Parts: sequence; C-alpha cells; structure tokens
Amino acid sequence: MYKKLEMFYEGKAKRVYKTVVDQEYIVSYKDDATAFNGEKRGTILNKGEVNNQMSAMIFKLLQELGVENHFIALINEREMLVKAVEIIPLEVIVRNITAGAMAKRLGLEEGIRMKFPVLEFSYKNDQLSDPFINDDYAVALNIASQWEIQCIRNMALKTNEILREFFIEKNILLVDFKLEFGRYENRIILADEISPDTCRLWDATNNEKLDKDRFRRDLGKVEEAYQEVLNRLKA
Amino acid sequence: MYKKLEMFYEGKAKRVYKTVVDQEYIVSYKDDATAFNGEKRGTILNKGEVNNQMSAMIFKLLQELGVENHFIALINEREMLVKAVEIIPLEVIVRNITAGAMAKRLGLEEGIRMKFPVLEFSYKNDQLSDPFINDDYAVALNIASQWEIQCIRNMALKTNEILREFFIEKNILLVDFKLEFGRYENRIILADEISPDTCRLWDATNNEKLDKDRFRRDLGKVEEAYQEVLNRLKA
Ligand SMILES: Nc1ncnc2c1ncn2[C@@H]1O[C@H](COP(=O)(O)OP(=O)(O)O)[C@@H](O)[C@H]1O
Ligand SMILES: Nc1ncnc2c1ncn2[C@@H]1O[C@H](COP(=O)(O)OP(=O)(O)O)[C@@H](O)[C@H]1O
Ligand SMILES: [Mg+2]
Ligand SMILES: [Mg+2]
Repeated sequence: MYKKLEMFYEGKAKRVYKTVVDQEYIVSYKDDATAFNGEKRGTILNKGEVNNQMSAMIFKLLQELGVENHFIALINEREMLVKAVEIIPLEVIVRNITAGAMAKRLGLEEGIRMKFPVLEFSYKNDQLSDPFINDDYAVALNIASQWEIQCIRNMALKTNEILREFFIEKNILLVDFKLEFGRYENRIILADEISPDTCRLWDATNNEKLDKDRFRRDLGKVEEAYQEVLNRLKA
Repeated sequence: MYKKLEMFYEGKAKRVYKTVVDQEYIVSYKDDATAFNGEKRGTILNKGEVNNQMSAMIFKLLQELGVENHFIALINEREMLVKAVEIIPLEVIVRNITAGAMAKRLGLEEGIRMKFPVLEFSYKNDQLSDPFINDDYAVALNIASQWEIQCIRNMALKTNEILREFFIEKNILLVDFKLEFGRYENRIILADEISPDTCRLWDATNNEKLDKDRFRRDLGKVEEAYQEVLNRLKA
C-alpha cells in the first residue's frame, strides 16, 4: 500500500524514499548513530524504531494543537509517510536549561534553568560543521527570509510549550531540542524528527540523561534509555 | 589642566585613568598590539597616537550627527577625556563586506558585499575568547535588556551609515568594525574606540588592507598603514 520508490537521500540517521505521489516521501529510521559532526560513529539497537514511533506520536500531538508538520501516517515500526518539503537549512535549537556545547562556550554549568526559552540557529551544513549564526546572517545569506524566520521562531516556541508539558507529565525534563522546518505550498511546516537523538531529556526526579548524550559521552545503557523514553510516552 | 588620578584599568590597547571628576575618565592609547585573544603580541609604533586622534575625529563627527558617545575632548596626541560609562560587555560587530573569522566560519570568500549590513554580538569575555552570541542569549544571560539591545542595534546601524560615507570620501572601504556601548545616566551611549584596530579598512581602489589585519597576518608595513589612514582622514 505504501510503496517505496528510489531512495532520494540517505542521511546520518534516516533514509528518505520517493513514493508514487510527488508530494509524499517515506522516511525510514536507522539504528546508526553519529556525534560531533560524524567524528564518533556507532549503532544503537532499535533506535530507529524508538525514534520513528516517538516522532509519530509527537507530530500527531502537535498537529492537533495547531503546529502544522510533515507527518501523514505511521507505516510500520521504522517508517513513516510524510509531506515532501523543501528543507530550510537551519538547525533551530530551543533551550530551557543550560547543557552541551553552548553551556561550555558561555562558561555556564549544565542544569541552570534559563529566564526564558532561548532560541538559536545553526546553518545546517556538514562541511562547515553547522556553524552557529543569527537572524541577520540567515537572511543575508539567503537561507531564509525575514518572514520565514519570524514564522519559524513562533512555531518553535509554541512547540516548546507543548512538548515541555507533554514530557513533564511523563516525569521527563525537556532540556533542549533541535527542529528543522521546510517550505510546503507557500507555508512553513515542521519536518524531520523529534526523538532522543534531537532532544535532551532528563529524568525529572534524578536528572538522569535519557538521550543521545549517553552515546556521545559513553555513559552506558544507551538502548535502555531510548526504550525507557518510548515506554513512558506509551504509558 | 586635565589631571590623571590613579589608573582604573589597563587593557590590551589602552589605559583608563580616574580624574578629579567622578563621571569623567582619561583614556591613554598604547602602542601595544594583540591578536587572536592575546596569543599574538607586538608593538605598532605610534599606533596609540593614530588611534587616539582618529577616534577623536570620528566621535566628534558622530556627536554632530546625533550618535551620542563618550568623547569630551582631545587632551594630547595619545589621550582623550571621556564620559565614564558602565560598559555593556558586548562586542557589537557590523559587517558590510565578508572578511575575517566569520567569512571562514561560513565558508565565504573575503570581499563579498552583503545584501545589507549584518549585525552580530559577541560576549566580551577574554576567558571565554569572546564567544559569538545572539539577542536571546544577551537578554537571558543579563548582559543587556531587550530595550538596550534594540537601542544598540539602531545606534550601530546609524554609525555604519555615517562612517561608510565618511570613509569612502577618503577612498577607503569600511569592511566591518566593532563597537562597545555603555550605560550613562539612564541612556546608552557609544564608547571605547574607533580605529584601524577595531575597523577593517581597505583602500577602495586596490583593496589594500589599511588596518590591524596587516599585523594579524604579518603583511608588513603596519605602521605605514595606520599612518596612511590618519593622513587621509586629516586631508
Ligand atoms: N518532510 C521532509 N521532506 C524532505 N526532506 C526532509 C523531510 N524531513 C526531513 N528531511 C530531511 O531528510 C534528511 C533526514 O535524514 P537524516 O539522517 O536526519 O539526515 P542528516 O544526516 O542530513 O541530518 C535530512 O536532510 C532532513 O533535513
Ligand atoms: N567611556 C568609558 N568608560 C568606561 N570604560 C570604558 C569607556 N570606554 C572604553 N572603556 C573600557 O576601557 C577599556 C579600554 O581598554 P582596552 O585596552 O581596549 O581594553 P580591553 O583589552 O579590555 O579591550 C575596555 O575595557 C573598554 O571596555
Ligand atoms: Mg538529521
Ligand atoms: Mg579593547
């Protein structure tokens, strides 16, 4: 019923296939894991299944609450059908709590709650290692228009409000996350994935990391953390 | 007449002295040159005199054209009297043409004219090597308020328009420059210096560099370039 045609793109975490319909792609989630711009490589067993199912669940929720996104249907444990968009090459990062590279750059400890959610843009470009940019650069380099940036900012902040509440009900802190947006029929819609690969998720009781930092920092129990997140979301 | 009291701060390029008046400092410009966050050190003969006199000339012009700044009076070839401000720890960078670190980060050649002047902020902090930040970070980290950021943006862009015209009349291209602002009596005013240390200035005919890049990149004729800029401005 959902027929995959030729593979259109193979990325670090997913394969994208054309379908019989021009405006629809099938995304297939892999177990491959990379970090630090591809310097570190490995496999996380069943990650593909977790990320696909978790993304599907979250995209459905966001759709219901008015954040338009590319999700059409779950096909099987590893695959989903999505609207084909023209990806805007921006990594849109929302931060609620200090962590990761940015904390280090700014000389801040991890785990400090920000006064308000902080948005940042990186230029999605593997060759340049996704450099951090600002709104002015995004517009001046023709990455996105001023109108698109405004739209992306609003959608990212709304997504943050929804997901923060959604995760805290599962006793999970949403520390930060990365979104990608795309152009679709003259609108901007949310695309890509929302998973422990793209979110920092901490257990709200003991701050235990339940995300890709377990892989990045060799903390062990990587598969278990991914599975734990999916189990809590399904509960 | 202008009596220096104790030295209040010695920086990489200038010494700041208290005066008999609480709200006034004397700034004394040194010949010391540093680059790459202090990794490279040297001396540029008479740089202090050039930078002091050029800054005085430009601050006077900006004052006349409505960009309020700290300049009160030229004292001698190396020293000026300024309003004592509370410096906002932001390096406010305006770029008209691609060059330097940012061009490299974004994979752009030097010398490309931007669609419009691009503004960027670095957090002025030597220990962290002045990391690039955005508006959200400046506000969230209490570096400046939203209102102050807006004010700084407007003043920086106005300064750019004035200086671009001023320099092109001397056959010099204003490629990019760094400003610092401070709080003074509930207002934001422009402070610090405007010189070949803080501006990229290219000869408009042959793109020859007439600024600190000659020192950074060991291009030779460093003193001569600084002197040439001052001579053209005085002509
Ligand atoms: N709805 C969509 N339409 C088109 N491309 C998409 C869509 N959603 C995500 N993408 C793109 O598909 C690719 C997904 O594969 P991934 O392994 O994440 O790639 P990458 O290594 O480039 O991040 C990414 O380039 C992503 O931007
Ligand atoms: N009007 C002013 N009032 C107070 N401080 C100032 C004023 N103008 C500049 N400054 C500060 O004085 C110092 C000037 O010395 P400089 O050698 O440039 O220092 P740095 O190495 O910190 O850049 C800088 O810290 C600058 O922020
Ligand atoms: Mg990806
Ligand atoms: Mg300085």
